[in-house]
Amino acid sequence: MSLYVMKFGGSSVGNTERMQRVARRIVEKQDEGHQCVVVVSAMGDTTDELIDQAMLLNPEPPAREMDMLMTTGEQMSMALLSMAIHQLGREAVSFTGWQAGFRTEPVHGKARIMDIIPDRIQAALSQGKIIVVAGFQGMTPDGEITTFGRGGSDTTAVALAAAINADVCEIYTDVDGIYSTDPRVVKCATKLKEISYDEMLELASLGAAVLHPRAVEYAKHNKVRLVVRSSFNNNEGTVVKEEASMEQGVVVSGIAFDKNVARISILGVSDTPGVLAQVFGALAQEGINVDIIVQSGVKNGEADFSFTVSECDRAVAVIESIKGQLPYREVTSEDHLVKVSIVGAGMISHPGVAAQMFDVISKQGVSIKMVSTSEIKTSCVIDGNNLDEVIKALHTAYNLDAEQQVFVGGPQDRR
Amino acid sequence: MSLYVMKFGGSSVGNTERMQRVARRIVEKQDEGHQCVVVVSAMGDTTDELIDQAMLLNPEPPAREMDMLMTTGEQMSMALLSMAIHQLGREAVSFTGWQAGFRTEPVHGKARIMDIIPDRIQAALSQGKIIVVAGFQGMTPDGEITTFGRGGSDTTAVALAAAINADVCEIYTDVDGIYSTDPRVVKCATKLKEISYDEMLELASLGAAVLHPRAVEYAKHNKVRLVVRSSFNNNEGTVVKEEASMEQGVVVSGIAFDKNVARISILGVSDTPGVLAQVFGALAQEGINVDIIVQSGVKNGEADFSFTVSECDRAVAVIESIKGQLPYREVTSEDHLVKVSIVGAGMISHPGVAAQMFDVISKQGVSIKMVSTSEIKTSCVIDGNNLDEVIKALHTAYNLDAEQQVFVGGPQDRR
Repeated sequence: MSLYVMKFGGSSVGNTERMQRVARRIVEKQDEGHQCVVVVSAMGDTTDELIDQAMLLNPEPPAREMDMLMTTGEQMSMALLSMAIHQLGREAVSFTGWQAGFRTEPVHGKARIMDIIPDRIQAALSQGKIIVVAGFQGMTPDGEITTFGRGGSDTTAVALAAAINADVCEIYTDVDGIYSTDPRVVKCATKLKEISYDEMLELASLGAAVLHPRAVEYAKHNKVRLVVRSSFNNNEGTVVKEEASMEQGVVVSGIAFDKNVARISILGVSDTPGVLAQVFGALAQEGINVDIIVQSGVKNGEADFSFTVSECDRAVAVIESIKGQLPYREVTSEDHLVKVSIVGAGMISHPGVAAQMFDVISKQGVSIKMVSTSEIKTSCVIDGNNLDEVIKALHTAYNLDAEQQVFVGGPQDRR
Repeated sequence: MSLYVMKFGGSSVGNTERMQRVARRIVEKQDEGHQCVVVVSAMGDTTDELIDQAMLLNPEPPAREMDMLMTTGEQMSMALLSMAIHQLGREAVSFTGWQAGFRTEPVHGKARIMDIIPDRIQAALSQGKIIVVAGFQGMTPDGEITTFGRGGSDTTAVALAAAINADVCEIYTDVDGIYSTDPRVVKCATKLKEISYDEMLELASLGAAVLHPRAVEYAKHNKVRLVVRSSFNNNEGTVVKEEASMEQGVVVSGIAFDKNVARISILGVSDTPGVLAQVFGALAQEGINVDIIVQSGVKNGEADFSFTVSECDRAVAVIESIKGQLPYREVTSEDHLVKVSIVGAGMISHPGVAAQMFDVISKQGVSIKMVSTSEIKTSCVIDGNNLDEVIKALHTAYNLDAEQQVFVGGPQDRR
């Protein structure tokens, strides 16, 4: 007997029929002799519909009241799923976030979990019941309802798995697992059998739609064994764990890409301490996320540095606005670029992997505008026009092509 | 400065525009210098839609999970209404039943309130905030979410008014107040300026759609001053209080009626102790509500008695099923009858009121099949065919006709 946490996203419970399928799936797991704690998201478009209703009344609704509103979505799902399980003759009991013992910091819309007190879940488990927990929500010490923000239901599942010491945390979604690259671009993308937490994190742009990076980090920190699999078939899925088996001899596990990347360069900045902090502090204050930052040395007391953002015009405006405090010669920018990354734990022990990447890209007649590396990842910022060709060439070069074509359908779960 | 509890039913907040109107109304009350605690029902058809969703998954859903599901309706309303109030530049804070301190017995679907601990409401009031509370819901001592059943939001409002010692509890609905009879039948029905709790209770069939009897009882017990008024206009409404002013010289305050009444008579029952208990115990066990019960004496050790129900065939079947234990000669029944009642605290001191009623009814050529009286009410069960004429004649006879015709529109609030 194992203890499973099973998380089902919004599209997996998007209508009555899907809800019934999920209920059967849970009952089958119990039939195999396992204990089941289920985490469920709001059904299909419920969250968007609630947001629309709110916007009609108040375009800037208070965060506290938005949390009150949004948490009803998961509460509806959990109650309906419990009813569907009862219909199959099993006892199920649903818990809201606060009932399940999720204690969070006193922040609305993006609260972090401080503690989980799973007494009620454990009591119900010991009575042989199936537990259904509302994802994405908790309560502050003052009894205020909070939500976890994006990736909240994944995080609920992983944190709960850690708290109750579950054997496995299964993330059910509408794709079969994590792929070597986006199957919509490369038809022969391979489904990965396993992947390490770090690789998964570096592949965020590939995997974020099915498994939120925050949940992966939580899983890594608490050594929770994750399985990403489809709620629509019984295929095996992808195991995310501490160290993927090295026996596979895989150097590169996956190829990720971000579209909508802009490069901004600040040229001729006088090299005084605190310059970088000043620039990126100003950007952070405006809520602009910076991805890659590259500085390539100092010449005559002046430095050039470049970084990437998704919001080109806003970022340039911020840089121009601080010219008074931060003298520089020139700011240049280039929009509509893409970032391509190869990720693999095997890169650490295999020299020349990055060189091969540059070679493959240049053979596609594409010039590389920026490079950034980590121990298990190499990213290149390139022109966006030839993206598909570049990814296909890299996918083949690193032996990732599957023998069979993969079909991935349906909308992505969002939470 | 007075402390108001303002309750808005489902049709009063049925769409964005209505929600905004309610928000303005609350802000106006605050502008007049008052403190406002608002109780709100689920929007329009939300409750029915949730029930429909549940039925698709489980025709007999567990009551606990139904409570989990149903309480989301009020939670959505309260959050949206708070947002609408914020949009008008005021601070509003919403509370679910458990946050508002409603402690109930551990029963699902029809829990009774055991206690209210309004600490959080009082703290927020002292900060000058408008409080919005979800109607119809509470929590057991074990942290289980419960609902109050029909009339739940009215009861929430009244119980809260008692707990925080509010000056007035206003029940906003889609009619102007309590009428002397159903304005859909008698066009010149009068809106009552005031009415006593007892009269209101006896007029249940008239008033139940706008103010649930359970809430009236609660108000009576706790001496909560109630006002029933429209959320669509500023008319004064009807005050429900301990003793309506006697100066008005009103003998009969209102005329109520129930359609779909059946009379069942059990003839020749041997008059042994416990006979009545046996009959009505058996009916209660089948969930059949009995209204009037009349027994008119014993003859030769045998008694005849009659009672009214709404479910004729089922009641007859129950009586026939207990013939083994309870020997009787014959059971007869008559369906499609109506009950007409005149209600008024003034009846106590005015003899002849009932006689006048019988006279008016017989002048309409209608025969009276059963009579039942209380101190402030006389009811007659009659044939249903001439109902409208009988009510109009009684309305005129007791000087209830208004000078102007009344318009009442819109669907009735259900909670």
